This record gives sequence, C-alpha cells and structure tokens, in this order.
Amino acid sequence: MAEIDIGMGKSGRRAYDLEDLLLLPGRRTRDADLVDISWQIDAYRMELPFLASAMDSVTSPATAVAIGKLGGLAVLDLEGLWTRHADADGLLAELSVMDGDTALEQMRKLYRAPIDPDLITDRVAEIHAGGVIAAGAVSPKHAASLADVLLRAELDLMVIRGSVISAEHVTDGESLNLKEFVRELETPVIVGGCASYHAALHLMRTGAAGVLVGVDGGSTAAAGRVIGVGSGMATAIADVRAARMRHLDETGVYVHVIADGGFATGGQIAKAMACGADGVMLGSALAATDDAPGRGWHWGNSVVHPTLPQSNRVPVEPIGSLEELLLGPSTRPDGRLNMFGALRQALSALGYANLKDLQKAEVLVRPARGSAR
Amino acid sequence: MAEIDIGMGKSGRRAYDLEDLLLLPGRRTRDADLVDISWQIDAYRMELPFLASAMDSVTSPATAVAIGKLGGLAVLDLEGLWTRHADADGLLAELSVMDGDTALEQMRKLYRAPIDPDLITDRVAEIHAGGVIAAGAVSPKHAASLADVLLRAELDLMVIRGSVISAEHVTDGESLNLKEFVRELETPVIVGGCASYHAALHLMRTGAAGVLVGVDGGSTAAAGRVIGVGSGMATAIADVRAARMRHLDETGVYVHVIADGGFATGGQIAKAMACGADGVMLGSALAATDDAPGRGWHWGNSVVHPTLPQSNRVPVEPIGSLEELLLGPSTRPDGRLNMFGALRQALSALGYANLKDLQKAEVLVRPARGSAR
Amino acid sequence: MAEIDIGMGKSGRRAYDLEDLLLLPGRRTRDADLVDISWQIDAYRMELPFLASAMDSVTSPATAVAIGKLGGLAVLDLEGLWTRHADADGLLAELSVMDGDTALEQMRKLYRAPIDPDLITDRVAEIHAGGVIAAGAVSPKHAASLADVLLRAELDLMVIRGSVISAEHVTDGESLNLKEFVRELETPVIVGGCASYHAALHLMRTGAAGVLVGVDGGSTAAAGRVIGVGSGMATAIADVRAARMRHLDETGVYVHVIADGGFATGGQIAKAMACGADGVMLGSALAATDDAPGRGWHWGNSVVHPTLPQSNRVPVEPIGSLEELLLGPSTRPDGRLNMFGALRQALSALGYANLKDLQKAEVLVRPARGSAR
Amino acid sequence: MAEIDIGMGKSGRRAYDLEDLLLLPGRRTRDADLVDISWQIDAYRMELPFLASAMDSVTSPATAVAIGKLGGLAVLDLEGLWTRHADADGLLAELSVMDGDTALEQMRKLYRAPIDPDLITDRVAEIHAGGVIAAGAVSPKHAASLADVLLRAELDLMVIRGSVISAEHVTDGESLNLKEFVRELETPVIVGGCASYHAALHLMRTGAAGVLVGVDGGSTAAAGRVIGVGSGMATAIADVRAARMRHLDETGVYVHVIADGGFATGGQIAKAMACGADGVMLGSALAATDDAPGRGWHWGNSVVHPTLPQSNRVPVEPIGSLEELLLGPSTRPDGRLNMFGALRQALSALGYANLKDLQKAEVLVRPARGSAR
Repeated sequence: MAEIDIGMGKSGRRAYDLEDLLLLPGRRTRDADLVDISWQIDAYRMELPFLASAMDSVTSPATAVAIGKLGGLAVLDLEGLWTRHADADGLLAELSVMDGDTALEQMRKLYRAPIDPDLITDRVAEIHAGGVIAAGAVSPKHAASLADVLLRAELDLMVIRGSVISAEHVTDGESLNLKEFVRELETPVIVGGCASYHAALHLMRTGAAGVLVGVDGGSTAAAGRVIGVGSGMATAIADVRAARMRHLDETGVYVHVIADGGFATGGQIAKAMACGADGVMLGSALAATDDAPGRGWHWGNSVVHPTLPQSNRVPVEPIGSLEELLLGPSTRPDGRLNMFGALRQALSALGYANLKDLQKAEVLVRPARGSAR
Repeated sequence: MAEIDIGMGKSGRRAYDLEDLLLLPGRRTRDADLVDISWQIDAYRMELPFLASAMDSVTSPATAVAIGKLGGLAVLDLEGLWTRHADADGLLAELSVMDGDTALEQMRKLYRAPIDPDLITDRVAEIHAGGVIAAGAVSPKHAASLADVLLRAELDLMVIRGSVISAEHVTDGESLNLKEFVRELETPVIVGGCASYHAALHLMRTGAAGVLVGVDGGSTAAAGRVIGVGSGMATAIADVRAARMRHLDETGVYVHVIADGGFATGGQIAKAMACGADGVMLGSALAATDDAPGRGWHWGNSVVHPTLPQSNRVPVEPIGSLEELLLGPSTRPDGRLNMFGALRQALSALGYANLKDLQKAEVLVRPARGSAR
Repeated sequence: MAEIDIGMGKSGRRAYDLEDLLLLPGRRTRDADLVDISWQIDAYRMELPFLASAMDSVTSPATAVAIGKLGGLAVLDLEGLWTRHADADGLLAELSVMDGDTALEQMRKLYRAPIDPDLITDRVAEIHAGGVIAAGAVSPKHAASLADVLLRAELDLMVIRGSVISAEHVTDGESLNLKEFVRELETPVIVGGCASYHAALHLMRTGAAGVLVGVDGGSTAAAGRVIGVGSGMATAIADVRAARMRHLDETGVYVHVIADGGFATGGQIAKAMACGADGVMLGSALAATDDAPGRGWHWGNSVVHPTLPQSNRVPVEPIGSLEELLLGPSTRPDGRLNMFGALRQALSALGYANLKDLQKAEVLVRPARGSAR
Repeated sequence: MAEIDIGMGKSGRRAYDLEDLLLLPGRRTRDADLVDISWQIDAYRMELPFLASAMDSVTSPATAVAIGKLGGLAVLDLEGLWTRHADADGLLAELSVMDGDTALEQMRKLYRAPIDPDLITDRVAEIHAGGVIAAGAVSPKHAASLADVLLRAELDLMVIRGSVISAEHVTDGESLNLKEFVRELETPVIVGGCASYHAALHLMRTGAAGVLVGVDGGSTAAAGRVIGVGSGMATAIADVRAARMRHLDETGVYVHVIADGGFATGGQIAKAMACGADGVMLGSALAATDDAPGRGWHWGNSVVHPTLPQSNRVPVEPIGSLEELLLGPSTRPDGRLNMFGALRQALSALGYANLKDLQKAEVLVRPARGSAR
C-alpha cells in the first residue's frame, strides 16, 4: 500500500468513497434476466442482497415481513422502541408530527424505558408469523444478558453492532467476550461496524458469519466530524475484503462483508460489491418509502446520547412504495427507485452472471472535478 | 498504467474528464486559414469532423440535410418517432408544449408504436433528396431484422448503438452476432458506445469503420449515477485509442474513434482529439439551435424505459442558428457558438495543420481547484 | 519526502489540512472513562490539553480563572486592552455594540494606548487570586523590555508569539536574541507561530518548553491570501513533529508541539494529535461561549495593522457555556460542544489510553469529493 | 517530469495554479524595511516589479505617468483607442455609461478605425512629458509596419504580444520574422504571451529582454474554455523558468520572465516569483482603481473579435486609489490594497532580502479541499 507523506513526521494512506469510483464495462454484456443477484449467508438465501437497518425509522415487525417477502432481510433493533413499548407504532406516529426539539425530548424519554423481554419474544413471533426470517440487533453491552431471551424467541440471525466495535474492548467493568459469545451461540451472528483490516480480521476470528463495514458509525451519523474517526467506504470495504482473504486462507471460512451506510442507488451497491462487499445494509433509502415506520423521519439512536450526540434526526421525503424502491418500476431518472433492477442492469452492462463475479469488476477512480462526463 | 490502491483488497486506475485537461501550445503557431479540419471516414469526406446524434431532439430528415450541407453528417434514429409515425414533425411540435409528466406519458405511447419499414425508406429518400449522405442508427436488437430494409433504402452509413454495447453479448434468446453481421453487410458500420480498451478492441474486430466512445450512455444519460458504470471521457478516448493502435498493428486497418457525449465547445472537441478521437458526435449542442426538431427540449429514448429510466428530458435554450453554432459568427464569449471556428483557432494556437497532427498535442492535467488561471 | 513537479523549473511538497484526514480505528476499543487526556508541560499539569488564545476576544482575567478551573490554561495578551486600559471590560462591552467601521476605528485608538506595567502586575494577580496558573503572551518586540515586570508579577508561563516568528530575525535595529533570552529567563516559555521543520527546530534550540504551530498567523488571519505564506495544518504539525524528534535525539529534551488555529471540534483536536501535537490552542471556539470577553465578536490584533490588515473582526454566535463547550453535555450533533468529551470518545474508538498513544494513530487522507461517506 | 496516464494511449503532466501553492517560512525572518523589491530590466530600474497591461481599461497616457511615478511601468496599447482616436478619453467616458450590448457595438466600431501614426507620436510624447519611461504594445501583425514610427517617437520599451505567440508562425502571407525583427531593433523588446518551455525558449532566442507568461491569453480571456488551450500559471512560470535556465546556459543572457494574468494580491505575486517570475503584469487589479481609464469596466480587445470573441467586458468596482492599491495604506483584510506592501511582508516572513532570493522559496501544494487552514 502506497503511503503519502502528510509531513516529515507522519504518513498515511489515501481513502476513497464509492462516489469516487466508476465501474468500467469490458468485452462482454449480458441479458439482465440472465443475471443472478441472490445472496446466501449461513443457512439463509435471499433473492436480494441486503439487510434493512436495525433502526426504528426503518424496521418494524410489519416492514420486516414486507421486506422479507420482497427478498431482503430486515433487522429489528431489539433495544429500540419496539422492545421497550407495547404501543411502539402509536408512539412513532406521535413522534412524526412533533417538531424537532419536542420530538428529541420525547425520544430521550422513550429510549430510557427498560427493555421488556416479553416484547422481544412477541416481536420475533410477529415476524415469524409473517412467514419470513427474523433478525434482530443488540449492542455488545446487552448481548450477553439478552442471549437467553433471543434463543427462546428463536431469533434466526443476531446482529451485534455499535458505531465502532472491536473484538478486544478494554474496560474495567464486565465486557462481552465476543469470541466466546459468538462461538457458543447457536444463532449465526453478524457483527460490526468496523472500517479497517485489523478490526475486521479480529471480528472475523470471533466466528461471526458476517461483518458490517461502516465508515462513521451509520447512515445518520457524523463520527468523522465529531470525533475525527472514519474511512472512505470504498477503502473500508476493500480493506475488510483483504481481511476476509486472510481469514479464508487461515481458516477456510468465508465471512460475509456487508457495507452499511447511506446507499441510495443500485449503482452505489454495484460499486460496493466491486470493492468486495457480499451484501449491503440499507437504512435511509428504506426510510424514504411510503410505509416506513419513521413516517418521514430517520434517525439512529445515538441521536439521544446524553452528552455527545453524534447523529441527526433528519426529515425524509417518501418517494414510492417499498416494492418500487427495491424492484421498480421507476419513473425517476435519479436511480433512487428500482435499486435492484439497477444492480441487475449494472451486471448486464458489465457482463457478469452473479454478484461474486461482480467483485472482479475493473474500477476507475474518477476525477474530483465533477460528473462522470 | 499506474494502479491506485482503493484499499488493501482492490486497486484501480484513475480516470480523467476532458474538463481536467488543457492543451499546451508549443514552439509554432499557424494561420487559422492554413488549418484543415476535414474528416474522411470510409468513402465519405466531411468538411467538419462530426456526426449529429441519432436522437429525435437533434436529427430529423430536414436537419440531416441542413447539417450535411454545412459539412457534418447527421444520423437519424431509425427506431425513433420518424420511422414509427408519418407525422413525426407534428407530434414533436405537440410534445414541445406539453408539461413534463404529460410529455413523458405521451412519449411512452409514441415510442411503443411499431417501426414502419416504408417510413424508413421514405426518410432515407428525403435525406438523399437533399443531396447529402444518409446515415441512420439502429439498436443491436433490431439491426438484423432491419438490414434488408436499410440495404434497399440505400442507407450510406449504419450506426449500431446502445448505451453499453459489446461484441460478445450473452443471451439465451437470439442475439446479433456483430462480427458476422458487420462483415457481411455492404454498408459501412459505426458501432458503440463503449468506454474501455477491451470493449473497443472487440468491436473493432467486427470490421466496423468506427467506434463510438461514450462514458455513461450518451449526453442526456446518467448511467454513472444509476448503475455505477462509466469512465472519464478523456480516459475512455485514450483507452480506445490504444485499442485502435493494437488493431492497426494486428490488421493494418485504421478504425475511427468517435467521442460521444456532451460536447459544448470547440475547445472540448480539440481536447477529445488530442486524446485520440478522429471525430465527435454532437447531441445537446445541436439541440440548442433555433431549428432543432426538439424545439427547446432534448432527450434520449432511454427516458421512456418502462422500469429504469436512466436519462432525463431536459429543456434547452436555443442560442443561435445551426450555422452560427457550427461556423459562427459568434457574439458569445462562452465558446458555444462557432464551435468549429474555435477548433480551427485551437489548431492555429497549437501550430498544427490538421486533425491527425492534433492527436499529438501535449496535454496537461489541470488542478482540481478551479479555472485555468 | 516526495516532491511534486510544479513545472520544469520548480518542485514542492504537498500539504494537508486536518480536514483532509480521518483516524482509522483498529483492533481495540476502550471505555471512555479509561482514557486519560491530561497534559503536562514543564511543571504544569492540566486536565485538558489546551491553551486559550492570547486574544482579547477570548482571554480576560475572569475567563482565565474559569478556564483554569475547568482544566485548561488561558494565556492573557499582555499587549492587549487589559494591560493598556484599567477599564478594559467596559471598553470591550462598548465595542461589542458598535458597528464594523466604528468599532475598527475605536480599536485602532485603544490599541495605540501605551502598555501600563502596573496593569500587567494587577492582571496576573487577578488570575493568581482565582487559584489558577497565570500565563501571558508578549511579542518578540516587547519581550525584553517587559521581562522584569513579568518576573516581578510572578507570571508562571510566558508565550512569545507573532504571526510568523523565527530564531534568527534580520534587522538593523535592536532585535530580541531569542536564544539568550529564553535560556536566561526563569519562566518557562512557549514560542511561535511557526509552520516548518527548520523554523521549529531553531525555535526549539532556544530552550523553549513548547512551540506554537500556526499555518497562517492565527485563527482570524489570512496570511495565505494576503501574503501567500502558510502550510496545511496537518503538514505543519507533522513537519514540526519531525523537528521535535531531531531535537530530542540531539538534546534529550522533549519540546511540546501546540497546534494553533481554528479548532472547532474534538475530532479536529484528535487529528492534530495523531499528526504529533501535544496540545492545542483554542481561539474562535472559546470566543463563541456565553461569557467570552468579545461578547459575540472575535479578532486578532493584526486587524488594526495601520497599512496591511491581515485579519478580520468576525461575529460569532455564542453556542453555550464555557463548561458545555469543553466538557458538555452537548445537545448539538455538530461536535461544537463537549469538545473534550469528543476527544475522549475518539481515544475510546481508537483504543488508546492517553494522548501520547494517540500520536501513533493510523491516519487516512480522505478524498476531495465530499463527506467521509 | 512525472507523466500521468490519461488513459492507455495518452499521458500528460499535471499543471498547477498559483492558488494551489503556499510559501513556507523557514528559519529566518527579516524586517520589512530591509527588503528590496525593485526590478531592473535592460537599462530600466523600477521600484516596483510590475508592468501595467496594454489594455485601454488599464493604461492611458495619464495613468502611465502616474504608474511610472509610483515605481511601476505602464504599457500603452498602441493599437487601441488612444492611437485610433484623438478624443480617446471622451470616448472611454461615453462607453462607461452604455449598457452591455450598446457598448460592445460601439467598441466594435471604434476598434475598426485606422491607427494614426501621429497619435502614436503624441501619446509617447505625453508619457515622456510626465517624466517617466514610455512603453507600448503592438501585435506581431503590425510590429514591422509601426517600427519606424515607434523609433521616431523614441519609445523606450516595446511589447509584442498576442494571446498565444510563437517565434515560428506558419502563414502563406507575410509574417513577422521575430528573430530578425528583435535583433535589428534598437528598442528593447518584451514578447509574449507564451505558456510552455518550448514556446518560451524560442521567444528568448529572438533576443527579447523579457517574455510574458500567460496561460489563456490574458486576464479577461477564456481560451481554456473556448479553444481548450492553456496551462496553470504556476506550471507555466516554472516551465518558462526552465527555458530561461537553458537559454542562460547556452548564451549567458538572462531573459526576464513576466507573469501576466489576474493578479489581485501581493501574495499571488510572491508565489509567482517563487515559481521563477522576475516581474508581473497587472491588468484587472489596476482597472479597479479610482482613476482607471475604464471607469468601472475592464476588457481586452479580443472582446470585439468578429467571429469568435474569447473574452468578456466585465464590470469592476473601484476599491481605492492607484497609490493605495500599490503601496497602501490598506483598510481591507482581503489583500487587494497595498499589494506591494504585502509583497514586502512576504519577503519579511520568508527572510529574503530581494526578489531574486524569493525565487528560491520553498513552495507547498495545498490541498484541494479548501482554505489554508
């Protein structure tokens, strides 16, 4: 890796965002209906290669079912409103019509309520009742104490996530030993976010089925600005891909790389996969659909941090139904609808048969000046 | 070619747009009237090195005649309104006064009408009657079925084009074998768009007289944003130039490289040629002339794609007559009129006698910060 | 160090700003309360690693006491209003309600009044009376003549500063011999600003305890625009870090590197430290607190330069109390409050125990295009 | 020189503007009054290192005298209004109150009037009568025919200029043989603009005392946009500096390099000199003074080109007197007044005694992101 001199006493690598890249077509093209964009992780096969974010503005039990039926896999935040309040849906409706400060104050109150294990069981059951896989997210802090509840609830896939997570957390209190925890758990685990080779490699070594790659803590967050920490998404994925190669070489186990943060078009998803992602996590894009639980708002729960909020509650304009967003048809030339139709078109233009082949695509770093033209 | 590390597990080349470049004058200058900007491709010699885009907002039979008389060569879209509707001109007039959504709906209807072979014959005859060369464009999908009609209509030059095209299209239906098709056809063929060395090389090997270089599917399109695919125009031309060199070395045949997409000034044309282009295809520039068939609007037919529109119908303000646009005189200091007078001035400032010499010009990559100053 | 060809007859290095960098998390994380962000320079230990700028809009005797109690160290401008006018506070209040031109004219008058040695003694005593360390700044021009007064006043730390300062000033008048002056003085000295390896190395050799790194003369200044002089902050810190290494190698003495200019978030501070800074100087950030002496305005005294003003008097909107700014709690997701809570979070995300470790952090140069995402 | 791959078939160097650079202070500083910024070219010594542009909006006989007395050297356009019209001043006053299109039409008429040799003699005499050196500019086209008139008029310095000029102009008509012309002329000659090593080297070999470096034809022009031709100013100066080195090595003659185009601050001048310039030509800056002949407007005569205007007539807001602009005092922190005081300050901060030393200054390429901070 080429190092740049920042100055005489410090050097560093250059990072790239997906916006910096373009995919270069080659000698072949392919009919879009001869393209396979399905994704298999652990025992689960999905027609569409995405997870829906564990955010209250994105995933509710109802949208989890709808997303599952359309081919994706939604992750419910098991420490959010749905497991703290029986009437989460009513509370979300009330929040959506409050102005900024009132809503924030109310959210601070709602997120302080205790997690109710029975509600966890109920929510997982609701999703299962819809006939789809149930996935849920917990923080490292609560993972151990909730493990039994989740096992009994027959959660299919567990996501352990934080804005920056590591396999080696230094604390003087009790800390989750991720390696022991993941190995002993029967449920397959996806863990993250991480943004670097070393963080990812150590998370892979815990036995996780997949790692989340996030460059500044999630799609509404701003860790780059507030605490200076982050990477470029393209660089982060490519670094974590290298960790996957090493881990595969050492263990024979292929760990999935799931890019998380701000995907709005199929083109961005195609570029993430060319860098090495196996799947993506969609947040803000899904929050902009007609039936999103956020009802025109999107937030991560770091927005209610008591001393250092690092994200915003942002308004989002619904642009279509969940189905239109994922599978079209689209009437917008901006690529925000029919995201996975666009992914198919990308494979078609590049001549690839499936997503694993797409990881070989030639990428170009486009100039800083402006558009592709 | 220098590769950049995107991250530890992926690398790529850097791409450049024409806007990134400047042409550096050398030790000689030359009178502008001692400069030859004519272009010969196959049997056809043009005073001005350009094709007019096969778009209904740019080329009609009437503008094809006018453009031919001024020294260029217009390409009629043989799958557009002119070959589907006898009264295309009236329909275009009606479209021009409709608002956005109404126009799009009407366009979807008009472009679904079947292609009428008799109209193809009539349109080619109209152009021939004007005393100029007749060129027309078809898609790979329709090329084979229309070949006989076009032969009988005595089309002089056939353009086979799609947003991304390859010599090796994977399909489970019937597919055009470009190599057989082009070799057997008596009419000379220009084929594209393509944006890479390998795609261009294989298109050249079909026996085409020229290839179109387009970085994201044409001048109104946005494949870079919607599906992530593209290149920088300067890089694409230079890559395809390298394919031309190899093909010339292997076969002795010089295939023309025609840059397609968004040219607005003679300076941009000069830079495309310094990168290796032999000619350019003009679309939006011509749509902004007083008598353009689009009457103040410009669009590609991907705008009516049923599930994934990847381009816009955009308003364009007419800035002068076709002749003023191509040959001046100009009263605007922005370079949008007298495009080929400006190309002459570029050769004059650089001291070159003709366009082939211009391909040797020294280019500079200018800084990202701002203007040339 | 890699040199870039500006042209055939000149080359130079590339400079980076802190905004160009991101800090990449690694394999470890750490509880934020197991992080030590204290700073020891000479005999003085501070809970928070910052100095408050010697600017009348930032440091008054009262804010010096408040800042000291919160864990920082404020530097009073000993050539500013507080040592020229007994009623500096009243004058500052009057200035704050004057419009731009009137205020500038009044400031020119106020800053022309003579420095009163008795006021120096009084101001230092006021600060000491508050129970905190007293630091004050003088220019090279006045350092020698004020030395006795400052010694008698029992100033704890002296800052000798100018927009660009060197250990070797060419003059035909009398000039401060920094090397003799600093060595003979009992009070520890911090000196600057400087922006390069050579300037810093020679300042270190004077015996200073710390050097200020400033890229264009301070946070309200614009030497880059007016006289073309400057560096990037990240590059300047990394260059001065290299000078510190060499000086340490030659002498065994560790000189502190203090970055000065425009810090607004804890993330920026974390990045400065990753480049090699031991502490930072805060100006405009502190000017935006409720009780700042500038009362909504911020300026450096170069704003009243009689023939070539190189800085502005700029309005600043107070965003919270001094304590909220430094230690939170914050209600803003932009990182401008709880700056040192954010610095703690940065160390937590990066897994480092203290600021010296933070200097080892891996930095990335992020792309020019836009945000970290 | 490092070449960048534009694509597989074309490469080029990177160009830099002065805005991309910063000057890095070193181990020394110096009193501003121990700095010498005078400039000697041929027999003429100027207190300030600049020429005033040969533009009717900048140089009149009256401003030539005023500029000469303040230490610079103004160049009268000998093919402009002053040598075509006896009442040029009245005509300029009338133009200044006309709206855009009316003014352009009137200008086209005024610039078509014939050049009157007697007026040339009168204008040179007016300047001499003011007690200052008289310099005038002609185009290559008219240089030979006007040579006798200029000799008789006792012009002190002749500037032969065009937007792009070469020592080897290809024409089938009569062309100025610059080499013979310059060698035989008794008057010292400055010639340009040029932007490259080869163009400059051949101009130097004509025997010129100085060459003008201009990247796109002058400060109101836009050759980069209209015809694609240009360079970055920093790169152009550094390239021409290399030509000067080679010419000096081959002949022992030092040819002066004069940067022409858009200088607005002393900082920009300092950076041009660090790249290798000996002097600068000021146009738009001088057009923004109270008594500029353009009276609030600025233009080059390419604005009246009959078929391809490549520049604009632009409004300029007067910001102060000629003396304030050149020597201060300034009340603006943007550096547009007291340009040469700022140049002195730059030398002071960098520790250099004179302009020749300034050419050794260390330059940094600053990041694309934003300000120096």
